[in-house]
Formats: sequence, structure tokens, C-alpha cells
Amino acid sequence: MRTKAAVALEAGKPLEIMEVELEGPKAGEVLVEIKATGLCHTDEFTRSGDDPEGLFPSILGHEGAGIVLEVGEGVTTLKPGDHVIPLYTPECRECPSCRSGKTNLCTAIRGTQGQGLMPDGTTRFKMLDGTPIYHYMGCSTFANHTVMPEIALAKVRDDAPFDKICYIGCGVTTGIGAVINTAGVEIGSTAAVFGLGGIGLNVIQGLRMAGADMIIGVDLNDDKAEMAKKFGMTHFVNPSKVDNTVQAIVDLTKKGDDQIGGVDYSFDATGNVKVMRDALECSHRGWGVSVIIGVAPAGAEISTRPFQLVTGRVWKGTAFGGAKGRTDVPKFVDWYMDGKIEIDPMITHKLKLEDINEGFELMHAGKSIRAVVEY
Amino acid sequence: MRTKAAVALEAGKPLEIMEVELEGPKAGEVLVEIKATGLCHTDEFTRSGDDPEGLFPSILGHEGAGIVLEVGEGVTTLKPGDHVIPLYTPECRECPSCRSGKTNLCTAIRGTQGQGLMPDGTTRFKMLDGTPIYHYMGCSTFANHTVMPEIALAKVRDDAPFDKICYIGCGVTTGIGAVINTAGVEIGSTAAVFGLGGIGLNVIQGLRMAGADMIIGVDLNDDKAEMAKKFGMTHFVNPSKVDNTVQAIVDLTKKGDDQIGGVDYSFDATGNVKVMRDALECSHRGWGVSVIIGVAPAGAEISTRPFQLVTGRVWKGTAFGGAKGRTDVPKFVDWYMDGKIEIDPMITHKLKLEDINEGFELMHAGKSIRAVVEY
Ligand SMILES: [Zn+2]
Ligand SMILES: [Zn+2]
Ligand SMILES: [Zn+2]
Ligand SMILES: [Zn+2]
Repeated sequence: MRTKAAVALEAGKPLEIMEVELEGPKAGEVLVEIKATGLCHTDEFTRSGDDPEGLFPSILGHEGAGIVLEVGEGVTTLKPGDHVIPLYTPECRECPSCRSGKTNLCTAIRGTQGQGLMPDGTTRFKMLDGTPIYHYMGCSTFANHTVMPEIALAKVRDDAPFDKICYIGCGVTTGIGAVINTAGVEIGSTAAVFGLGGIGLNVIQGLRMAGADMIIGVDLNDDKAEMAKKFGMTHFVNPSKVDNTVQAIVDLTKKGDDQIGGVDYSFDATGNVKVMRDALECSHRGWGVSVIIGVAPAGAEISTRPFQLVTGRVWKGTAFGGAKGRTDVPKFVDWYMDGKIEIDPMITHKLKLEDINEGFELMHAGKSIRAVVEY
Repeated sequence: MRTKAAVALEAGKPLEIMEVELEGPKAGEVLVEIKATGLCHTDEFTRSGDDPEGLFPSILGHEGAGIVLEVGEGVTTLKPGDHVIPLYTPECRECPSCRSGKTNLCTAIRGTQGQGLMPDGTTRFKMLDGTPIYHYMGCSTFANHTVMPEIALAKVRDDAPFDKICYIGCGVTTGIGAVINTAGVEIGSTAAVFGLGGIGLNVIQGLRMAGADMIIGVDLNDDKAEMAKKFGMTHFVNPSKVDNTVQAIVDLTKKGDDQIGGVDYSFDATGNVKVMRDALECSHRGWGVSVIIGVAPAGAEISTRPFQLVTGRVWKGTAFGGAKGRTDVPKFVDWYMDGKIEIDPMITHKLKLEDINEGFELMHAGKSIRAVVEY
């Protein structure tokens, strides 16, 4: 079949809208009509050429929602008409990682996915001249139709709006999951969130859900504070307006006979390795847990004195919020539909696929939290 | 009273054996006759002058065992005749850290202890000419008698030999505690231990107790392997004999359909920040936990790519093996007496106080696991 897609032909170039050829689903695969997709910083990381592992030409996009049109041989858990969210972290429930029960990082199709290929080592997309087009993060939601492995699709309820729940395919789950799956925040905790973009806001609402007492937002841009407050931020620190960010957070958290200070949990949602260090070091001696969410530039390294860890701080990271996609994503959709989590105020812009490059401009200008393309 | 002590008069000089003045216990304090003390690398770190926070003159030593001779006003949990192990990490059960239940890093007397003083801001030790002598790590077990706060003494059973259980005051608890308290190793785990000195051997026996399946020892010195095997090491890697230490460990741990490899738990007992990085990076994607035990040189920093954490590895540290001294140390003594843990083969040298400097020479020559001074 033919479908319409925004194709990344070359690193650093705007996406080009064009008709492409899409082969039907092979065994274990599913054809999905994408109804909506968010534009994420990770797409831009690859589009811009900053991603050393970026492949071109490719169809980017990994934050989508849609409807199953056709299933390949042997597919048993999905049927045409099912509403689904594509998963860039699949959940096969069979591989050593899935079986471990300790991680969401399924390895069933890791090798081919990283090479922009389907599990059989080929692509389903082609240019009209026959040139293969790489898949992206196993999803390629910047095409109106895509083919994905069954294990990389979460079946969700039919009554949830595509233009909102597509965000659960990445940002919402990453932020909230970091709080509840990776950090395991308890009621009454104190926390700091570095970076108040889309991920940071979702960390904040995750902290509110988890019952945190003090939620300190940290951002260089004062304008970000207002929205963050709506999601549950209780205190704000602008690093450009204090002598020492770590000290400012430590001071905020001293209370009663605890004059050591420091937050119980901290989260980096900036991708800046210096900020990651601050996030670790503002966490409480003895038990502070710091979680890295942001993606750092290629080659960048985090560092600290080992004393920070020897005195009880724990340094962790999270991918897709530690969520097991097929198990957890439907639950996140329920939470959204039940009003437990908010998404609507974060979808700041709606675009047609033809205008997708404007979405990246809004992202660069810091004007959008999430721009969503509706097909 | 007067007592005999090995005094560190100046950084880098041998200890000097001399009579010193010891004031009796004030309120909340206890006079202890030290019966035996181990010589630890941390004592040598300070004696040598490498410790930027070292104070002189001081009486070093923090790995002791002895008998209560006299208690100060208000002391309720100890009485003359009680056998005790000094704790450089006290357990007050009242401070925010103790109350948290999340850490053993009691802060009740942290400020003064770090300054070489008793909680009231003075020293109990003096030279015969009246010059105050600093306490060390709140213990000063290189004196035949010392005064310590009640909260820094673990009461232990009377039938345990001082010349063995003194080692529980530091090395044994640090190594075994890192496994059971900090890492929380489960039955069937795989683990790597970097550095097969005293701490490393105790990590290994902790892993054996915890039921680890594969215990990989890593040391530049092949001669260390024999003793480590006796404590439970199952595999040995000499970094000078493989191309890449991390890869060698990863290869050892691949099994069945898990071709990713990596240990479930790793421990650095070297204090070398490059080794700490290897320890982290040889741990398993998705769930590997790496624990820093060794004390790094002043100013040294650990580093890695954040990707290591984002893909599920956890970086932690431990002090005194996460043990709550008054609660856990008596349990460790029971385990020793019950034959659950071995100490005797690690006490390789016995010395008189007069010969304490020979003990440091043995340590430098790598000839001792533990040298113990008996009074
Ligand atoms: Zn994303
Ligand atoms: Zn899997
Ligand atoms: Zn020690
Ligand atoms: Zn305490």
C-alpha cells in the first residue's frame, strides 16, 4: 500500500512530506493506522544529526496512537479495530530481561530495532523508487500507516482520544514512570525536578500522585514556573538567580532537627551532565536517590566524588520510566481517562502532517510543551 | 589515669609509643579497656598524611574490642565488665538519620567526631605535658584505654575472643554488610569483587552467605586468588592478563539465552576510581547494582556515560557496610561464634603495641590481610 509520511532524508534537513510504499505485516507483525503522534526531543536529536547512531532516510516519530488495520500470521493478542499505542520499548515477556522481573528493557528485538530494521532484518517502508527507508525506534509514527511487531504494541481502551494518549507513548510514561517505577517515591517525600519541559512536568505530576510533600522545580526560565505549579510544583529555584543551586535546594529542605538537608529524590530531565551532578548532590545524605531521565549528548560523561555515594546517595537512570509497555501503558491510559493524570494542558499545539517542521521550530523556540500531529 | 598509646605525632612519621593522660568518662561516656585492635588501611591513610582531614597529634585506630571499666553519668545501656566493640559509626536511635530507618549514617556526634573531639568539644587524651591529643574516628583504639560515647559502643557476648572480633569493628562488617545491607544480594546471584584484600575477602564471604552462584574475584595479584577461593570465590580475573576486564567478566556471565552478560552485583574494594567505573560497567544491563566500598584519594572523581545508568545500572556506595552498629555488630559476633562467618584465617599477624609500626610495614608489603595488636 501507499501512505503519507514525513521522511528524514538527510541529517539536519527539514522532513519531507511524501507518499511512500508500505509492505503489509509479516508473521508476528501488525499494520497500524496512526491517528496522532507527538513530536519529541528524541526525534529532533536524530533529525538534527546530533544522534551519532541516526540512520537516513528514515521515518521518525515514536509517540503515537492508532488503530490496528491488519495482523500478520501468528498474531494472537491484537485484531483489526483495536486501539493501540506503539512501544519503542517492547515487552515480549519471554526474553531474559522480561523474565527477570527487574527491568523493562526487553531485548527481544533490540539488535534489529537499533539498526532501523524490522526483526527479520528488512524494512517495510520504501521510497516510490524502491529505496528502503529505515524504521525509527521501532515505531515510525511520522507515517500515517506503519508496521510494527505485536510485542511492541500496547492495546488500550477504545474511548480514549488519540491526540492526547499518544503522549503516553513517551513523555507521560517516562516522567511519571521515573517517579513510581524507578525511584519508588513514598508519601511525604521531598523531591527536586531539574528541567521543567514536558518530561519535567510529568515527573511533577507523578510526584503529586505519589504524595510528595515538597516538589522543587529547577529551571533557568522563570516562565516555566507557572505551568509547573499547576501540575504540583511547590517550590521553584532558578539556578541563574542563586549562588549555588545545590545549596539552595539543601537549604529549602532543612527542617526541624534535620539540618543536613537535601531531597529524598531528584530527577534530571535536562540531559545536561553538569545538571545530573547537581541533581545527585542535592539529594539527602544517607538515602537520597537521583534518577537520570534526560539523554546526554554523545560522549558526555557524568562525574562526582565517590564520597557522594559512600555517604548513601544512589545514582540511577530510567528509560521509558521503567514501564513495561504492554502491561503499564493501558493503565496510564485508564489513569488519564479517570482524571488521575492530566495531559490536555501539555498538548499546546496541534498540527497537520504537512506542517510538521513548524512543530520542530516551536520546540526550538521553547514555545510548545507538546506539539501533536493529527492525521 | 595514665595509659599506653601509639601516638601519631606528625603526618608521615611512625607512631610513637608513650604514656598519655586519659580523663575519665563524662556524662554519656564510657571508659573502655581496649584488649585488641586491628590495623586498617584507613589508619594508614591518615598516618601517612594522605588524608587531607587528618589531625595531629592523634591516637589512631578504629577497629577494636574491649571491656567497659567505668561509665559516666546517665549511661544506662552499659556497665563495667561488659564486652564492647567501638563504633566509628554510632547509632543514637534518635537523630533524623537513625529515625529514617533508611541509613546507618547516624549524625548525632558527626560534627565533633570529624574534628577529633568528644561530643562536648574537648579531648580526653593529653600528652604528659598537657598538650591535647585528638581522638580518631571517635575510637582511638591504638590506646590501651579510651573514652567513647555510649552510643558508639556495641555490647557483644562475653565469650568471643577479642583478637578476632575486633575485626568486626571495621573490615568484616564493611565487607559482609555491603553485600547484605547495601546491595541486598539474593540467592542465585552473580557477582564480581574488585580487590581481594581484607575487605574484598569479606565481601566474598558475604556473597557466599547470601547464596550467590558465581563469585568472580578481580585482582592484579594472582597470589590473592588462593585465599579468596577459600572464602567462596568461584572465578578469578587478573586485569593484567586480559584485554578488557569488563568484557572478560561479561563473557564469563553469559549463559543460556542471556547473551548480554554482566554480573547482578559488583563491589569495588580498591578505592581506585577507574576500577569503580569498571565495576559499574561490568554489571548487567537492566538491573546491575554496583557498590563502592573503597575510599578514593582526596579529589578523585568517578565518571561514566549516563547511558550506563539509563540502561538500568545502579551506582551506590556503602559506609560500615550499611550496618547499624549497636543493632548489627552483636549479630555479626554471633555469626562468627556460630561458624557462619570466618575471621581466623584473615588475622595473619599478631603484634604487641610496641611493634605497631611493623604492622604498617606488613600492610605496605602486602604481606598481611589483618595485623592485630593485642594489649
Ligand atoms: Zn520521546
Ligand atoms: Zn522481552
Ligand atoms: Zn577500617
Ligand atoms: Zn543517630
